[in-house]
Amino acid sequence: MNNSIIRYILGCVLKIETILLLFPCIVSVIYKENEGFYYLITACICLILGVILTVKKPESLVFYLKEGSAATALSWIVISLFGALPFWLSGEIPLFADALFETISGFTTTGASILSDVEALSYCSLFWRSFTHWIGGMGVLVFLLAVIPLSGGSQINLMRAESPGPSVGKLVPKIKTTARLLYIIYFGMTILQVIFMLAGGAGLFDTLTITFGTAGTGGFGIKNDSIGGYTPYIQWVVAIFMILFGVNFNVYYLILYRKWRKALSIEEVHTYFIIVIVSVTIIFLNIARTAGTAADALRHAFFQVSTLITSTGFSTTDYDLWPQTAKTVLILVMFIGACAGSTGGGIKVSRVIILVKSIKKELVSYIHPKSIQKIKMDGKPVEHEIVRATNVYFVAFTLIFLLSVLAISVDNKDFTTNFTAVLATINNMGPGLAGAGPSQNFGSFGVFSKIVLMFDMLAGRLELFPLLILFHLGIWKELINIKRRITNKK
Amino acid sequence: MNNSIIRYILGCVLKIETILLLFPCIVSVIYKENEGFYYLITACICLILGVILTVKKPESLVFYLKEGSAATALSWIVISLFGALPFWLSGEIPLFADALFETISGFTTTGASILSDVEALSYCSLFWRSFTHWIGGMGVLVFLLAVIPLSGGSQINLMRAESPGPSVGKLVPKIKTTARLLYIIYFGMTILQVIFMLAGGAGLFDTLTITFGTAGTGGFGIKNDSIGGYTPYIQWVVAIFMILFGVNFNVYYLILYRKWRKALSIEEVHTYFIIVIVSVTIIFLNIARTAGTAADALRHAFFQVSTLITSTGFSTTDYDLWPQTAKTVLILVMFIGACAGSTGGGIKVSRVIILVKSIKKELVSYIHPKSIQKIKMDGKPVEHEIVRATNVYFVAFTLIFLLSVLAISVDNKDFTTNFTAVLATINNMGPGLAGAGPSQNFGSFGVFSKIVLMFDMLAGRLELFPLLILFHLGIWKELINIKRRITNKK
Repeated sequence: MNNSIIRYILGCVLKIETILLLFPCIVSVIYKENEGFYYLITACICLILGVILTVKKPESLVFYLKEGSAATALSWIVISLFGALPFWLSGEIPLFADALFETISGFTTTGASILSDVEALSYCSLFWRSFTHWIGGMGVLVFLLAVIPLSGGSQINLMRAESPGPSVGKLVPKIKTTARLLYIIYFGMTILQVIFMLAGGAGLFDTLTITFGTAGTGGFGIKNDSIGGYTPYIQWVVAIFMILFGVNFNVYYLILYRKWRKALSIEEVHTYFIIVIVSVTIIFLNIARTAGTAADALRHAFFQVSTLITSTGFSTTDYDLWPQTAKTVLILVMFIGACAGSTGGGIKVSRVIILVKSIKKELVSYIHPKSIQKIKMDGKPVEHEIVRATNVYFVAFTLIFLLSVLAISVDNKDFTTNFTAVLATINNMGPGLAGAGPSQNFGSFGVFSKIVLMFDMLAGRLELFPLLILFHLGIWKELINIKRRITNKK
Repeated sequence: MNNSIIRYILGCVLKIETILLLFPCIVSVIYKENEGFYYLITACICLILGVILTVKKPESLVFYLKEGSAATALSWIVISLFGALPFWLSGEIPLFADALFETISGFTTTGASILSDVEALSYCSLFWRSFTHWIGGMGVLVFLLAVIPLSGGSQINLMRAESPGPSVGKLVPKIKTTARLLYIIYFGMTILQVIFMLAGGAGLFDTLTITFGTAGTGGFGIKNDSIGGYTPYIQWVVAIFMILFGVNFNVYYLILYRKWRKALSIEEVHTYFIIVIVSVTIIFLNIARTAGTAADALRHAFFQVSTLITSTGFSTTDYDLWPQTAKTVLILVMFIGACAGSTGGGIKVSRVIILVKSIKKELVSYIHPKSIQKIKMDGKPVEHEIVRATNVYFVAFTLIFLLSVLAISVDNKDFTTNFTAVLATINNMGPGLAGAGPSQNFGSFGVFSKIVLMFDMLAGRLELFPLLILFHLGIWKELINIKRRITNKK
């Protein structure tokens, strides 16, 4: 295993975090807040550590999937640990476990909060909280790939570990260009939303923080009632942009290059929109009688579906009070999630398509045992490897899911709360139902449960395997063995 | 598709049901009850239909997996429809949908009841209710295979469709002998339990009905408090026999032939016992402080684990009142289920082992991309086909599960009730938690929800695919095409 490259990447990540931490410092200067000081201190610590870790160039630039996975998992843990420092140092979140929960929730774009009164936070902390969503949405390593010179053809392994979906779509043959293109699209869409929000009369601070939460499909609000207090226009803008950030970014790339027909023919995106329309219709019919005017019902139905299918987690109303069918539809779209290659979480639409198709295939093989058929997506056969990995992914997902529900049951909360709390964290969504519902927060869970849920958030964002790999003994043996080998050489 | 053999099998099944229906008639004679009359009428109807369907021998005895699946699914539907008649005709269950629910619940060994007052039933109906468990436990088609002369090597397809587990273990090369051996073991163990029960002073009627419920891992009780009112001795006997009926019957076959070492080395059985011991320990520790003496706590913990892991569904206490960790452990063992090749339901321990091993394999392939490895069970590599089918089975299971939870949400019951009601029916268990808990019944669900749950019970018992196949258009096209072909020939 190539240890030195992992060290080097961690160093680069810390250097990037240094720069990112300067933004809340600027905010604190504007609003004349003392809390900015702690962001500055943390930035300094990150810079020093980053320089130490990168002063020696890595011995070799080659790395494989295991290095990619380990580097990704460790990067996310490191960035969260340091990102949590200002919350804790400033005393705004007194418990470090809580501060870490909030930060992991931010970077993984979950949006689950332990705070009962968000509005008590300082502006710079509110900014940092939402900013972590924006950073985590596209991924910190994708950014790294876009800016630092990592030669060697194996960078794809870094991207594969961080990008959502069953297969990594390289937009263009070069990884570096792909990473840059992704960030250009991400940046462009963010600016577009900012313009629409400002046009609706939302202040600059509100616009920026909400847009960060939308773009990363994160969901941290800056008000206690999330988006509920904004005008219907703003709610529609946020809802539509959530849906757009949940679309596979390949579509935008194709549109950018004017390949319209190809852009409009992607099977996953069709299915995604069909699911949205069907879910909104069912919920609309289910809540129409109780939710005020038809326009209100439609807006609430559309907003809640788009916030939960994209795993954002904003809310405009307490859907925990809705009838059971509406709530169950919401739980189902929580499971499905957004498109692969988007900033959204969940199992991903393309995985669901592959899973459903593999059931169909199995059924046909019952009826025509001799028929040989392949699962197809967009008209092309799906590689056997991807079908297998998708099935195994789903099994691993369910296993982690059930074990987490068991683990957090120690707090003796009701089943719906535990079930949807895990669902909301592993799918990087934010709020669940009942005791984890949109009008509640995660502060009442014990420290052990919080650790379990933090693990679930990271596992969900990194799509399980990069994180699970850290639990594999083999990896640690190799990390130690390498040191021995180096000592032996000397 | 060979239609005539399906017709012939359905006829045979009806003839068998005629004989089975005579047993409650005998009970009614002993207890001098009028309800026996309706059992006699139903028996006559079954006989007439059975004779009509079997008067013409099938044109060909060849059948494949699709005929096996279709025949199995249709047999189970037919046997349930006629089995429900006496309940309905006698007016003991006024609604036919309810009578059908109760009968399907009986044959599929689910044990979920729509009755709020079981003790109001006549003796012959109580007997029939429990007897359906015993019949359904080993399977009606396995019985058919043991007694009727179906030549041709393709009988395995009938057995495969009805037997639980990822692969069908033929005990001996001949199917007929296998089927007979299975029934001999089943019968022998039933008698053994009867002896133990009688020795404990339970009356003959109680002994027989409870034993039927245990052997088939069904769970219909004849008292409103299930097994709660019996002595601790009887409760221990029932608990231990539930565990024994949940063991892979291969073990008993091997013991019968004195292959002790092989019998004791089956990986699935080891895992099964480990799961039982771990679960009992966790629950015991969790409830020890609140459940009376340590002996009581241990008995309740052991009884509830064995009743739920084997999907029986008897209860000695209202575990819905237990703390959340104990309840969550129970939900997890409900999912896992008993061993393959037993009478128990659930996903099955061997499937869980295969699923966990395929996650491990995926993880190792991350770390060592070039390593080629096979999943092993009992030291032998598992065929690729079985691994794939197991994964697809699990996905299909989850999909049906979630869609059912959505469908029954129309009754606007709480999420825990809906979730565990589906869990309890698709795993053929019986009671769930909250509104479907051991002290509740399924009578309060609407007709639509009951139909969904009936489907789940059949899908669970037949392990999804035989039933799903009936929903595949291809099958119906073939059924119609054949008729056309015959007409064309003439």
